[in-house]
Amino acid sequence: MNMVDLIEKKRDGGELSTQEIEWIIRGCTSGEIPDYQLSALLMAICIRGMTERETFDLTMAMLHSGDILDLSSVAGLKADKHSTGGVGDKTSLVLCPIMASLGVKMSKMSGRGLGHTGGTLDKLESFPGFRCNLSGEEFLGQLREQSFVISGQAANLCPADKILYALRDVTGTVPSVPLIVSSIMSKKLAVGADVIVLDVKTGSGGFMKNDEDAEILARELIKVGRAAGKKVGAIVTDMDEPLGYAVGNALEVAEAIHVLQGKTEAAHLLELCLALGSLILTEGGLARDEGEARDMMLSAVQSGKALDKFAALVKAQGGDPAAVYNTDLLPKAGCVLEVPAPQSGYVRHLAASDIGRICLHLGGGRETLDSVIDPTVGIVLQKKVGDRVEAGESLAQIHAKDRASDERAAEAYLQACTITAEKPVLPPFIRRRVI
Amino acid sequence: MNMVDLIEKKRDGGELSTQEIEWIIRGCTSGEIPDYQLSALLMAICIRGMTERETFDLTMAMLHSGDILDLSSVAGLKADKHSTGGVGDKTSLVLCPIMASLGVKMSKMSGRGLGHTGGTLDKLESFPGFRCNLSGEEFLGQLREQSFVISGQAANLCPADKILYALRDVTGTVPSVPLIVSSIMSKKLAVGADVIVLDVKTGSGGFMKNDEDAEILARELIKVGRAAGKKVGAIVTDMDEPLGYAVGNALEVAEAIHVLQGKTEAAHLLELCLALGSLILTEGGLARDEGEARDMMLSAVQSGKALDKFAALVKAQGGDPAAVYNTDLLPKAGCVLEVPAPQSGYVRHLAASDIGRICLHLGGGRETLDSVIDPTVGIVLQKKVGDRVEAGESLAQIHAKDRASDERAAEAYLQACTITAEKPVLPPFIRRRVI
Repeated sequence: MNMVDLIEKKRDGGELSTQEIEWIIRGCTSGEIPDYQLSALLMAICIRGMTERETFDLTMAMLHSGDILDLSSVAGLKADKHSTGGVGDKTSLVLCPIMASLGVKMSKMSGRGLGHTGGTLDKLESFPGFRCNLSGEEFLGQLREQSFVISGQAANLCPADKILYALRDVTGTVPSVPLIVSSIMSKKLAVGADVIVLDVKTGSGGFMKNDEDAEILARELIKVGRAAGKKVGAIVTDMDEPLGYAVGNALEVAEAIHVLQGKTEAAHLLELCLALGSLILTEGGLARDEGEARDMMLSAVQSGKALDKFAALVKAQGGDPAAVYNTDLLPKAGCVLEVPAPQSGYVRHLAASDIGRICLHLGGGRETLDSVIDPTVGIVLQKKVGDRVEAGESLAQIHAKDRASDERAAEAYLQACTITAEKPVLPPFIRRRVI
Repeated sequence: MNMVDLIEKKRDGGELSTQEIEWIIRGCTSGEIPDYQLSALLMAICIRGMTERETFDLTMAMLHSGDILDLSSVAGLKADKHSTGGVGDKTSLVLCPIMASLGVKMSKMSGRGLGHTGGTLDKLESFPGFRCNLSGEEFLGQLREQSFVISGQAANLCPADKILYALRDVTGTVPSVPLIVSSIMSKKLAVGADVIVLDVKTGSGGFMKNDEDAEILARELIKVGRAAGKKVGAIVTDMDEPLGYAVGNALEVAEAIHVLQGKTEAAHLLELCLALGSLILTEGGLARDEGEARDMMLSAVQSGKALDKFAALVKAQGGDPAAVYNTDLLPKAGCVLEVPAPQSGYVRHLAASDIGRICLHLGGGRETLDSVIDPTVGIVLQKKVGDRVEAGESLAQIHAKDRASDERAAEAYLQACTITAEKPVLPPFIRRRVI
């Protein structure tokens, strides 16, 4: 086989065979196919697309490019959740403890990417001492005992994806459904869960900018997951404004804990967790229907079992669980500033990605892989889209390391916030259920 | 400006501005834009195309990426010919001496690419001692005195093209009209001629596989050349079978000399040179019409002036011109074998690219940039397409370094040759004139 022939085939709209796709991914993983050939192929795929079979084959080839976690020694239903990412998304911090408290095995293995805030790993490191570098044995042991574990990528999962993902980012080949699907699903399949639920974000701060594209992506993700023998469900949810109120690592941990304490629904955060959890419980056969699933989850919260499960995770991985019961113990920013509304009216729009960027500039995210995340900084929204606000009333709190950063962020926040005279009509938070 | 944004623009079918194209070519030339980003852009251009303005801007940016020859100190009409390449194409060896003997300044500056046979430079090196590494002063001096000079690329012409051309070859992005046009025309414009004539080959051994695509390419080449202020004409000619009878370096030199000696028309070789030369003379204002132009050229041949001009070139560049008057003095292969026809009939097809490959395998071309060309080897066709042949009669002579190579080549030649009972009906050799 010859890489130029395969690039030309895809360039001309042809279909790559299973063997051809496997050959490409082997050459990508071994480094034998140079970057410039891979990027030409990625662009051809981006423009010409891939058939359902090609997308499945690409996913499987990427899955088999590295290790696959073997969870067969862990009893019970094993579930995983994936979100296409957004601002203020602390869903895993709420959903996983609830599920684990109901006996569902939740194992998360994640990398540390670039972003507005850190990933779930980084958020949990707001607990001083929290340890993410678990050995394979520790990982499986904790999953068996606590039903919940989170770890950095100890294993060599989907090395082909790492290469292609890095290349896509710098070659304008990110927004391609087959490339997105194979990247997400190869990694999800590599961690060995039985049930996979997907939260595809839509809107200005989401990966897909409109509901239709988000639904197409959700359907393709489901197809590949099912073809690989998994139970899969997906929802399309709003990411036009940040999720919940908190944006920033320790601030999001606190918000997640408040939801687990039953103190707040954090706007749509609880709703989202209940929707995703229902999919897991019904797809996994632990609940007959959504009503029963929601009752199970709400009682896990009300009884405090979900909160205890969160505390157990923090303790098992070396952190002090006291903060789980008293979020005042979480690390705090040096300087908090309120952002007063310049006029009365209704909040019409909160540009999620702009607010994410404010958090990044405050030091809450990674601009480069060497960036050190400050867990304390971020933004707490006080008015969400649709809320009434009076001139001078606080729109948000900025948590920063000093007054100057605070003021810059407050100014940027006003730019990200649109206030109008009329009350806006909002679409439902959960836009679509794709089953 | 940001390369990813520009790649995305082209990926989505957008139009790149003049400034954007200039920025890309600057970054390409300086090495600041990595290969993998260039190849993603090349693929996007290959699939999405470019507007006329973009193609022109790309050509001009590539032209200005390096030196531009200044021929202003050379009096008279300066002309250049470009062929898209084919098998047995020794047109320059016939056309340039004829033109130079008529006072038209013909300066060729060429690289040494990979190919079935060498380029014009390599063919001329069949004259022992022929020297191609002229200084800038020698080049201009010889052009003034002899009206004819040929040199390796002393100057730094179109460095951006070198980078993009090498990348296109290995990323499946060769067949793109805007990329072909900008590559050809930037180099042609860099050598500073007033009149540029183009020979676009069509057919199985040509760059474009059919007449329609060849004409489209010819029209685009002309548009860009005229937009750059040049006089330009083009013809589309057959490359389904090799041009003339000889394929191989010294063999082609001998055939060119025989045409200049008036001994043969070498099938369509003289016809092609007269067509291209007419375009130069009429576009350049040295002849009123094609009739007058052809008369001028034919008398340059009949008078021996064109042959003398060839001898003067060889002498000026260090070779022994005696072989120009007696081609038996050219270097010869050790072993010549005839290929007898297996059956009687008419030659229906001679696969040009397969015959080119035979010459390459005999040692007459370059498989890698380090290959050393053997000037003596090659093939002399004895029957061309449409010719009658009897069983056992010779189809071709193979010139090889030993008997084993000869026999392998003869076997391959029979594969490349189709004989049928009916006399084929042939399209005209010059398919289209694009003016």
